[in-house]
Amino acid sequence: MHVLITGGAGFLGLQLARLLLKRGTLEIDGKPAAISGLTLLDVIAPPPLDDARVRVVTGDLSDPAVLAQAIDARTGAVFHLAAVVSGQAEADFDLGMRVNLDAARALLETCRALHQRHGQRPRVVFTSSVAVYGGALPAVVQDDTALNPQSSYGAQKAIGELLLSDYSRRGFVDGRVLRLPTISVRPGKPNAAASSFASGILREPLAGEAANCPVAPDTPLWLLSPRGAIAALVRGMEIDGAAFGERRTLNLPGLSVTPAQMVAALRRVAGDAMADRVTWQREARIENIVGTWPAAWNTARALALGFQGDESFDAVIRAYMEDAGIGKA
Amino acid sequence: MHVLITGGAGFLGLQLARLLLKRGTLEIDGKPAAISGLTLLDVIAPPPLDDARVRVVTGDLSDPAVLAQAIDARTGAVFHLAAVVSGQAEADFDLGMRVNLDAARALLETCRALHQRHGQRPRVVFTSSVAVYGGALPAVVQDDTALNPQSSYGAQKAIGELLLSDYSRRGFVDGRVLRLPTISVRPGKPNAAASSFASGILREPLAGEAANCPVAPDTPLWLLSPRGAIAALVRGMEIDGAAFGERRTLNLPGLSVTPAQMVAALRRVAGDAMADRVTWQREARIENIVGTWPAAWNTARALALGFQGDESFDAVIRAYMEDAGIGKA
Ligand SMILES: NC(=O)c1ccc[n+]([C@@H]2O[C@H](COP(=O)([O-])OP(=O)(O)OC[C@H]3O[C@@H](n4cnc5c(N)ncnc54)[C@H](O)[C@@H]3O)[C@@H](O)[C@H]2O)c1
Ligand SMILES: NC(=O)c1ccc[n+]([C@@H]2O[C@H](COP(=O)([O-])OP(=O)(O)OC[C@H]3O[C@@H](n4cnc5c(N)ncnc54)[C@H](O)[C@@H]3O)[C@@H](O)[C@H]2O)c1
Repeated sequence: MHVLITGGAGFLGLQLARLLLKRGTLEIDGKPAAISGLTLLDVIAPPPLDDARVRVVTGDLSDPAVLAQAIDARTGAVFHLAAVVSGQAEADFDLGMRVNLDAARALLETCRALHQRHGQRPRVVFTSSVAVYGGALPAVVQDDTALNPQSSYGAQKAIGELLLSDYSRRGFVDGRVLRLPTISVRPGKPNAAASSFASGILREPLAGEAANCPVAPDTPLWLLSPRGAIAALVRGMEIDGAAFGERRTLNLPGLSVTPAQMVAALRRVAGDAMADRVTWQREARIENIVGTWPAAWNTARALALGFQGDESFDAVIRAYMEDAGIGKA
Repeated sequence: MHVLITGGAGFLGLQLARLLLKRGTLEIDGKPAAISGLTLLDVIAPPPLDDARVRVVTGDLSDPAVLAQAIDARTGAVFHLAAVVSGQAEADFDLGMRVNLDAARALLETCRALHQRHGQRPRVVFTSSVAVYGGALPAVVQDDTALNPQSSYGAQKAIGELLLSDYSRRGFVDGRVLRLPTISVRPGKPNAAASSFASGILREPLAGEAANCPVAPDTPLWLLSPRGAIAALVRGMEIDGAAFGERRTLNLPGLSVTPAQMVAALRRVAGDAMADRVTWQREARIENIVGTWPAAWNTARALALGFQGDESFDAVIRAYMEDAGIGKA
């Protein structure tokens, strides 16, 4: 079976690729299916992965020729991760629409054509976001709480969810939508996501730098570690599509924590010097987006389907330090 | 002020045009604004309306040249009614996507360009449908009950709602989404909407013909008369956008009735001979779509905003007979 990862040079895409290559299989319909090919599609080139199964397609997902190159009759599983993140989609409306909506749809259309030609229905894992929610929310968000996005990114993800559901209902693809919590601690550089600080206030201090928290210390965030996110993507691909029942959309388990609690965890795990590098200058542009995201979630459905969250934010910081090789003698 | 009606040669579009011409004004920001121009855009030509204010644009809404012809700097109000109805969007997926999604978006883009060039933000009334709901539903549907469309038409309308909300949030247009109940009694011929029978089982008997009800007699339907729908469209255009609060989407008041109750009303109003012309052969294709639509609604928000439903289904039938000139000596 061939696997495609769009956004394969991105943060989650690359980690997922590494895990899939190490595993070598995906369990499909109760049987391990060997991953004979892994295509990474992205506008930027990934670092070399040194594996004969890997094929790199560098190009724009919204270009039909690029898509045609990335998907063929052997493609059985698609992780659709390519996206323009929240801050950027708000700043550049057209770019967000082109990538988050049009390219997602073009991807589904390519799968549909495959189905019509070869009778084959690829599994498609689509990563949505808590940004599909907003406005007045119930105390605890449910999988079937009404969407009310307050950002263009959230609106585009919500539209992607509807498309994936309808394409699945019609049998064009076998889709699964995972609403990811904010991923933290994300390695590397700050990005244009409004939630970028949710990694920055840990990552930068641990690298010896100052970092600003642009939202109130008691702002509730809903977080998942990179390891947890990758495990969830794999689980989302492996479970039986029918197990989703009438909704192809799932809120993933996460940790509800505030920046104050995150910095307290940093203090416990890595010491005062680290925690004291965080400054607290609020920025309206970020607060306007992040402040509409909910904090308390009922993820019973995901838990019943075998998805897991993180144990504690202290453990998340420790795992990040381990992966980043920080604190080793 | 110029007014545009897309789908202006359609059932609601044409009735709306006639009412607007008779009224001569729309109340905007508490003041009557004279309707100096009324453009009817449709793929089919409307019957002649004999009014100097009327301009007919015949063409496909998904053609940018047609849109450019229909909207200009004087356009202050757009009723977007053009659509491919439910049965047809299910039978021809691509057509539904092109008209219900792409053309709606192209319309919003044209308004956005207008806004960017002339600083003007047209009011846009978008007609959505109860088909955005489906699956397991609460006993009473609320404005913020989660969408779960079980038809491509419903999915496309739900996407249209999200687009209109985001375009409104960004200030590109001043949008209002009205989720119309099924309109009954609709004059003319049966159409490809799955709900076409909800008019047919009244209209055909009253015209001396047999009519089949393809769903169980106790299937709950949510109905609004044509007069009620037109009044709601006008009200939706006239109220202050800010009155919508954080949701630009509104479930309109309707009547919850079953086919059995409708035929009983027909029997009361028009006699046994009429009611006995209805046959009851169930059709799975129709039941699969209509059976997922909910029956009980909380429309307190719409009522508070000055929208009204019909008084009784007997009154709806009487109004239809009056409009159609049936039963006059
Ligand atoms: N990281 C999070 O906190 C988080 C939370 C919720 C949802 N998500 C979603 O998960 C997915 C992956 O997130 P990530 O953190 O790895 O993001 P990322 O930005 O690191 O990766 C996205 C990748 O998509 C690529 N891309 C963008 N536009 C493209 C195009 N037109 N054609 C091809 N490639 C394109 C980018 O180059 C990038 O490598 C995204 O869909 C994101 O919206 C992420
Ligand atoms: N009538 C109902 O029961 C009902 C219920 C819920 C929602 N609605 C919605 O209300 C609106 C009006 O409904 P109606 O009953 O008048 O429908 P209708 O079918 O009578 O009118 C729609 C019109 O749109 C036109 N049209 C279709 N594709 C077009 C295109 N590409 N370019 C230009 N014009 C195009 C058609 O020619 C038609 O005249 C529709 O959006 C419909 O989805 C209707």
